[in-house]
Parts: sequence; structure tokens; C-alpha cells
Amino acid sequence: MANPLVSDRNVEFLLYELLRMGEGRETYDLVLASARELAREQLFPAFRPMDQEPPRLQDGQVRVHPAMRELWAQMFELGFGEAARHLPRTVALCASHYLMAANGAAAGYLGLTQGAAHLIEAFGSEFLKSDFMARMWSGEWAGTMALTEPHAGSSLADVRTKAVPRPDGTYAISGNKVFISGGDQDVTSNIVHLTLARIEGAPAGIKGVSLFAIPKKRPDGSDNDCTCAGVFHKMGWRGLPSIALNFGERGACIGWLVGEPNRGIGYMFQMMNEARLMVGLNAASTASAAYFEALEYAKARPQGRPHGARDPANAQVSIVEHADVRRMLLRQKAIVEGSLALLLQCAHYADLGDHRSQLLLDTLTPVAKTFPAERGFEANALAVQVHGGYGYTSEYLPEAWLRDQKLNTIHEGTTGIQSLDLLGRKVVAENGAALMALNEEIEAACARAQNAGVEPSWIEGVRKAAQRAGEVTMHLAAKGLSGDREGMLLHSVDYLDLFGTVAVAWQWLLQAAAAKEGQARRDEPFYRGKLRAAQHFLSTDLPRVHLLADLCVDGDDSYAAVKADEL
Amino acid sequence: MANPLVSDRNVEFLLYELLRMGEGRETYDLVLASARELAREQLFPAFRPMDQEPPRLQDGQVRVHPAMRELWAQMFELGFGEAARHLPRTVALCASHYLMAANGAAAGYLGLTQGAAHLIEAFGSEFLKSDFMARMWSGEWAGTMALTEPHAGSSLADVRTKAVPRPDGTYAISGNKVFISGGDQDVTSNIVHLTLARIEGAPAGIKGVSLFAIPKKRPDGSDNDCTCAGVFHKMGWRGLPSIALNFGERGACIGWLVGEPNRGIGYMFQMMNEARLMVGLNAASTASAAYFEALEYAKARPQGRPHGARDPANAQVSIVEHADVRRMLLRQKAIVEGSLALLLQCAHYADLGDHRSQLLLDTLTPVAKTFPAERGFEANALAVQVHGGYGYTSEYLPEAWLRDQKLNTIHEGTTGIQSLDLLGRKVVAENGAALMALNEEIEAACARAQNAGVEPSWIEGVRKAAQRAGEVTMHLAAKGLSGDREGMLLHSVDYLDLFGTVAVAWQWLLQAAAAKEGQARRDEPFYRGKLRAAQHFLSTDLPRVHLLADLCVDGDDSYAAVKADEL
Repeated sequence: MANPLVSDRNVEFLLYELLRMGEGRETYDLVLASARELAREQLFPAFRPMDQEPPRLQDGQVRVHPAMRELWAQMFELGFGEAARHLPRTVALCASHYLMAANGAAAGYLGLTQGAAHLIEAFGSEFLKSDFMARMWSGEWAGTMALTEPHAGSSLADVRTKAVPRPDGTYAISGNKVFISGGDQDVTSNIVHLTLARIEGAPAGIKGVSLFAIPKKRPDGSDNDCTCAGVFHKMGWRGLPSIALNFGERGACIGWLVGEPNRGIGYMFQMMNEARLMVGLNAASTASAAYFEALEYAKARPQGRPHGARDPANAQVSIVEHADVRRMLLRQKAIVEGSLALLLQCAHYADLGDHRSQLLLDTLTPVAKTFPAERGFEANALAVQVHGGYGYTSEYLPEAWLRDQKLNTIHEGTTGIQSLDLLGRKVVAENGAALMALNEEIEAACARAQNAGVEPSWIEGVRKAAQRAGEVTMHLAAKGLSGDREGMLLHSVDYLDLFGTVAVAWQWLLQAAAAKEGQARRDEPFYRGKLRAAQHFLSTDLPRVHLLADLCVDGDDSYAAVKADEL
Repeated sequence: MANPLVSDRNVEFLLYELLRMGEGRETYDLVLASARELAREQLFPAFRPMDQEPPRLQDGQVRVHPAMRELWAQMFELGFGEAARHLPRTVALCASHYLMAANGAAAGYLGLTQGAAHLIEAFGSEFLKSDFMARMWSGEWAGTMALTEPHAGSSLADVRTKAVPRPDGTYAISGNKVFISGGDQDVTSNIVHLTLARIEGAPAGIKGVSLFAIPKKRPDGSDNDCTCAGVFHKMGWRGLPSIALNFGERGACIGWLVGEPNRGIGYMFQMMNEARLMVGLNAASTASAAYFEALEYAKARPQGRPHGARDPANAQVSIVEHADVRRMLLRQKAIVEGSLALLLQCAHYADLGDHRSQLLLDTLTPVAKTFPAERGFEANALAVQVHGGYGYTSEYLPEAWLRDQKLNTIHEGTTGIQSLDLLGRKVVAENGAALMALNEEIEAACARAQNAGVEPSWIEGVRKAAQRAGEVTMHLAAKGLSGDREGMLLHSVDYLDLFGTVAVAWQWLLQAAAAKEGQARRDEPFYRGKLRAAQHFLSTDLPRVHLLADLCVDGDDSYAAVKADEL
């Protein structure tokens, strides 16, 4: 059986049974059907070829896999370019989930272009909207985000790319960027780089960083002095070029300021926050594709016999009959579907758009980026493991997804950076308003679960873990307020792990509730599987919260204390 | 600074301060110095080239990277071919650690040849010893182990390769093997495949499997009908070919029986047990090389500023100054040095050779294979993470080590298979004699730690965890005796994780004791680092034992209960 990449039934469940978005379903289903077909019939067949023939630099031009032109055209013809503008974020996210599961690199070109166009839409001038953005939404041009410089990856305060005002209101740009995904390609006729740079004389640090739109070709079609200085050879995401990009090597690179001077970081954060959710979604999608590949393999591959019936005269059984193989599969399912539910919850808050929802979205963003990325890597490793020796070879697909997945803990802010965002900024904002709102959400989920007849010990487990998370947060916030910011943030990654585990447990409780509600109407294997995955997550992962809380609070100080020369 | 791959000081510490092997030190140090030099100056420079130009099949002959011929010659000229025969296992293991850290693929050719030669030495006829084995010890010929068949990976009971007696006492062999590492190459003039096959008419299952030595060329130099049917494209270990091997396609393949008919599995287990420790060592070595690469990078790479001093006018600091980066480094150190200590402990038991030591070695083998493989993968991922975006590119080395590492949870018995070996066989053998011996060893370690002045809470933590492991084992053994073998083995992988964590915690306690003893003589940064790594492991990892114990005993039954159609 062909790999479905994503469970249609699960998408339906999340949208219509968990989030109860039945109104508008007819339109949504058409979009999803179209995404599904594009994913399975066009994008997925190009996945391995694009992995095996990565982009190369030829005479100053990056050449990507030729399949990409056709895929790009198809994505825009079917309306996925502008889908994010017109659909609820929840539905757009489900559509993207299919595209990413089928071909993360191809979906990457699209997502970057959407993010860049959206940034101009929010902050750009009328000129940029009419002459740049419109061409990006239509797929005529592509977009990128150009933040990182060789000496400034996580530290955007140190951006050095220079912008000098020109008499006509544009800027002369010069500087070097690295790791620019889609930074050059031969798919679209032009590329707009949303670029962080510093206007001559601007203040030091992030308060002096501005945002520019820098096209590869100027609106009159002439060259704009954006040079590809090299293509990085990546371990995964090999269909999407990541390049070193030099602006203004010949002094002839022009940029257009987006919004006001020195406010670039704030604007860029809009794109980055969207991009972080998209990274989380890519992670969940990459894990999903591999999970279903492993599941199909496990059903089809005969090997060994049950512990109680080892007579070699009996035929071998499918490996899915071995409990340990089902452990690896159920664990993948728990990670994939838990991640997806959390991401949809975030999209739902974005759709609601009120202040409280925005607070929740802001707070959950680093979590919805990191949990799928970190645990997705674990899930992808399990998909390789289920395939045994075959999983280690490129004759099978899981190794490619494992390689792809590793980027997600790094780009758009490493796990460490996300943890500082969560603990150092988000949970302490507005006197902890987000955490209070989240606790209300968790309480509501507990009530829904109780009404639906979910196993009481699961509800109690989630409630206690959430309470513990609250206590840890109070303790760390107090430490920060007392002036010990290093101490507050010492276990930020453990805290993020704790928070992510609680958040996904909450989503599993909601899913268990919706599954029970569904079973009351009609029993299905799907609902039983949901409940088993919920059980697995709540029994196996959730108890870790208390260990992590101990670390965050009493704190192993080993790595705080260790010196570089002792390592 | 160049990557040292392995800490010389740590090797010295483990051999002479922890294991107190001072007698013979002069000889050992010469061997280690030679291994170090070979590793750093010859093997390591060839690592990336061999990764980038993997073996290919050309006109029926596998061609490997040309550097391999010179490396092979060097390894044998310097005496590493026979080192394992003449040196204590502990010392030979340290020497191998250098070679593997520098170039796991190159060391793989050697290790396979040693294992195969050793198998003939133990069970082969005088003819095989004089005409096959001697040429293998000298490096004239190489060796492999040929177990896996397309339909029989983990399930050796299902081996089908056929052996038909010939009048001269040899056998006509026919069958297909897959994943044969070093199964063909153009480095040595001949290759001996130690092969599992079934003599015509033998009983079904493992009791009908015999062991054969099958050379690529017959002793008279003529072709022996061993055909390479294809080279697997692997995600890592790309310097060492893994091939599909057909015996007797033209009916002209001759094999020599090793030992007695139908006892092949027992013989092969000698080689497999050695190979399992070598896989664990490869895992520790692969993690070690990446750890030191990340450490050097973290010291050299400026990025960001301390939480309390973010003024952008200040210079950026090295990333090793960030506590979270030190967390990632200290965690790698804890995994690498904890794994290595456990492997050395196993080698030490092999050197002692008495019944009790053999029991301990047998029991610890699946643990010393799996802990380094599973946690080493985590360590290797952290080495990528420390490198940020650069770590994801092949312009840097960590991605290659991450790819290499993934194989170690799969080959020589997957983690699942190791867990069944540990719980289903080893800990219950001789009425739990091994566990009793291990508890004595742990008590002795606690006493040594107490005398040395190690922090009492660490000692107590190890003691309690070991006690808990004992209780879990009793509980599961009783379940097995009551006839519920599925139930006993349901959480075997959690049990292996628990057991591995206790075993490595024991080794960290011993290392802490030896470090304290050392500090009493002379304080060194090295000892302080040891104690920090011990603290980290005992504070962060050891408490997981109690969660794992809960799972093993009361047991989340989610994956036992879930049906294939519910996944």
C-alpha cells in the first residue's frame, strides 16, 4: 500500500471533532482534497529525486532540480500561494501539512515566499505592495528572509549589513548573509530578499536594525548585484538551496526600506513567529511521513515469531505483531498527532485573534516549534529503527526524513534560543497572563474530558503536571526578579521540555475527549487508536514533567559550574 | 586547535587510576602512542574523503576508496592486526578506541577481520588455522561475518543458505546474504566469509544452522563463485561497503565447515558478542570525536553575550561561555566517558576470565552495546546542535558522525534484540547469579566512593537505583516463571534503558571515586571536569530509573493492547 503521508481521518478529526469547525466544511474539504492530491501525486514522487540531486552553483546562478519548476507552478495554479490569506489559519495549516509531508523542500520555497509577502503586506509601502508583493502572491516572484550573517547567527544584535540612503529614497546595500534558504534558484524570474541591515549611523544592537526588501533583479529587470557566493552542502532539505549571499559586491545593490527605520527586528519577528510555527509543522509532517512509511513496512515485513510460539516450522509473522515494534509505532503516532494538535491549537488562536488568544499564541509558539522538532527527530529515528538495516539505506526513505528533520531544532532559532524566548520573555509577560490563560484552557480541557468519560487518572495527571509547571514558573520568575537572571535561565531547555510535555499532554487529553465523544456516536478503530496514543503519552511522557521540575528548581548546577578547561 | 578525537588523559585515567593497571604500563603506553599517531595522522585525514566517495560496484568487483589500501597496510605494519591477541583486552580496546574515533569505517575492516580470524582460532580445523587464519592475522586476507539474509535479519532461525556435503569433506554452498560489511573490496587479495548456512537435511530453526568459512578465492587462487549482487547506499559508515552477496550462483562455491555441524549459532555468538562490544566502542568513539569537535568549536566561536551584560558595544563571547552550550557539552562528555568506562569494565572482566567475570561480561554485553549506541546518537545530535547551522552542513564534520552513529542501534542486533537478550536470557541465567555479582560490584564501588570522599547523596542515589533495578528484575522474572512471557518482556526496551542507566551510573561513581583519589594527590582541571560530569549524569539521568521502573512494573499497556488497524 502506498504511504498516505498524513492521516486524512486524523485531519478531519482535529478540525471537525476536536476544534468543531464544521461551519465552512464544504470549502475546507475542497481545499484539503486538492492539497492531498497535489501532495501524493506531484510533490511526493519528486521528494527523493530532489534529495539526490541537490542544487548546484553554475556560472553564478543556482540551478535546482528541474522538477521544482513544475511543482511551483502547480502549487500556485491550485491556489496554495494565497491560501494562507483567505482561509482560516487552521485549515491552511492542514493543507500545508500535506505539502510538507510530501516534500518539505518544495513546500519550503512556498512558505518562504508567503512569509516574505505577508511581511510586506503588513508593513510595506504601497509601492512594495503593488510592485513586489502582488508578484509574490501570484508566484511570479519568490521571497526569502535574509537574517543570518557569518558572525551573527543567533545574535541578531550583531548584524552588520550596511544600508546607505540614496537621494531617491532607496538604500545602497552592502553585506554578507549566510544560510539563505531559497536565496537563489532558477524557478522564478525574481526573488525578493527581506533583509536585516543597519542604516549608516543607526544605534548599536537590535535597536539599530532595519528591514529592507532587496530584489535579485530591479523592477526594471536589471541586475541588482546580489551574488551567490556559494551553496551549502546540507545533510537534509537538499531540494532547497541554502546559500551565502553577498549584497553590493560591485556597489550596485539597491534595497527598499520596509516600514520605519530601526524597527526591523520587530517586523521580522512577525515573519519569524509564522516561520517558527511552519518549522514545527514541517517537523510534525516529516515525522508523519516517516511514521506511515514505518507502519506500512511493519504490516508487510515478516520477521520472527511471538515469544510464546517460536517453532521455526511456523511461518514468520509481520513485525507489527511484535509488541516492541508497536511501541515504536505508537510512540511515533503520539509525537506526530500530539504535535499536530498543538500546532492546530496555535492556528486556532491566531484565527480568534483577540488579545488573550494572541498571548496564548505568542507563548505557545516556541513550544510548538520545539516539541515537534526535538521529538520529531526521535520519531524519525524510530522509523529508521522499525526498518532495521534497510532503514539505514537510501534504498528506503526513512533515512532521508531523519536527515531532513535535524534542521528543525536549529533554524528559525535553535532550541536554546526558543527556551530563552519562552522562559525569559513569554511566560513572564504581563505578570504571567499567558500562563493564567493557559491554565484556564487546561481546566476547560479537563472538564471536557471528564464529561466525555475519559479515564480520571489521565485528567488528574494533566492537572497535576500543569500545576507543577505553574509552581516552577513562579519559582523561576521570582529568581529572575531577585536579580539572578543566569540562575532563572539556567535550566531553560529543561523548562521548555517540561512546558512542551504539559502542552502536548493537554492536547492529548483534548483528543482523548473528542475520541470518547466520537465513540459515543460510533465506535471506530481510529478512536481506539487515539485513546491508546493518549494513554501512551500520558503514561510514558507526562511523568517526566516532575523530574524536569526538580531539575529546574533545585537544579543540577553541574554545567553552570563547569569551566571550559575542565571539559 | 586540532580535534584530539579522544582524551589521552582520560584513557590514562581509566586504565591506570580507575582500573589500576599500572603493571605493564610501559608496553601499553607504547601501543597507545602508536594508535594515537596512526589515528590522528593517517586515519582521520581519510575520514571525510572516504565518506564522500563511497564504494562502488564495477565489473563485478567492489572498488573502495584508494586511501584504504595504505591505511590497511599501516594498521597491520604497526601491529594492530594481532594486538587483540597479545594485549589485555582493556588495552586493546583503548587502542581500538583511537582508531574508531578517527575513522570508524577503516577500523571496521580491521575489526571484522579480527573477529573472523578469532572465530577460526577458537573453533576451526588445523587446515583453516594454517591456510586461512594465519593470512588473516597478517592482513594478507580479510574476513567478514555473513549472517543476514533478505528474509532473515533479526531471525537467524530462518537462515536458508544451503550447504551440500562434497566427497572431499568440503560443502557446496548456495544462498543469498545481505548487509555484508566488507563483503567485497579491492584492498586484500582474498576475503573469508564466516557464514551461517544449513546442511542439507539439518533440523529446522537455529538448531540446524552450521558455520562455514567461505573464501572469495579458493586456496589455489581460483574463483570461488561469491558474487556481489549490489552495494547498499548507506546513510553513514560510507567508507565500508555493505553488500548483497550471492554464494554459488554458478554452482561453484565451496565452503569449509567450522567446528561441528549444527552448532553454528553458538560459535557465531562468540564473534557476535565481541562484535557487540566493538559496536558499543564504535558508538562511544563516534560520539567522542564529535564531542571534541564541538568543544573546540564552542571555545573558538564568538556569538552573543551573557544574560546580564547584553550591551551590543561589548564584544561577543565564545559560545562555551553560555551555560546552555556547556550543558550540551557536559552531556556529551557524560555519555562518552560513561560509555567508555563501561566498555573498559567489560574488557576487564574478559581479561579476568573466571566464571563470575564471564557472567558479568555476558550480562553487560547487550548494555555496553546499546547504551553507547542510543545515547551516543543523542550526543552526536548535540554536537551538531552546538555547531548551529554549520553543523547541518558537510562543510563541517558533525553531520557525518551523526549519520555514522545511527547504524549502531541496528547492526549486530537491534536495541530490541539486545533487550530480549538481557531480560529474557542474561539476567535470569543461573538464578540471577549475574545480577547478584553486579550488585556486589556496585557495593564495592559505593565503598570505594565513600572512602574517597565522594558526595554521599551520589552514592545513595546509585545504591537506591541498583536496588530498584533488582526489584524490577525479580518482579519480571516471576512474571515470566508464571508463564506470562509476553508480559515479562513487554517493557524490555525500558528495562534495558533502566539497566544501562544504572550500569553507567555505577561507572560514573567509580570515576568520581578515582577522581577524588587523584585530587588527594594533585588537583587538576581534569578531575574537576570528571566530577562535574559525574554530577550531571547522577543528577539528570539516574532519576529516570524510577520512572522506567514504574513503566516496567505497573506497565503502560498501550502498545501491548493497540491493534495494527488502530495505528
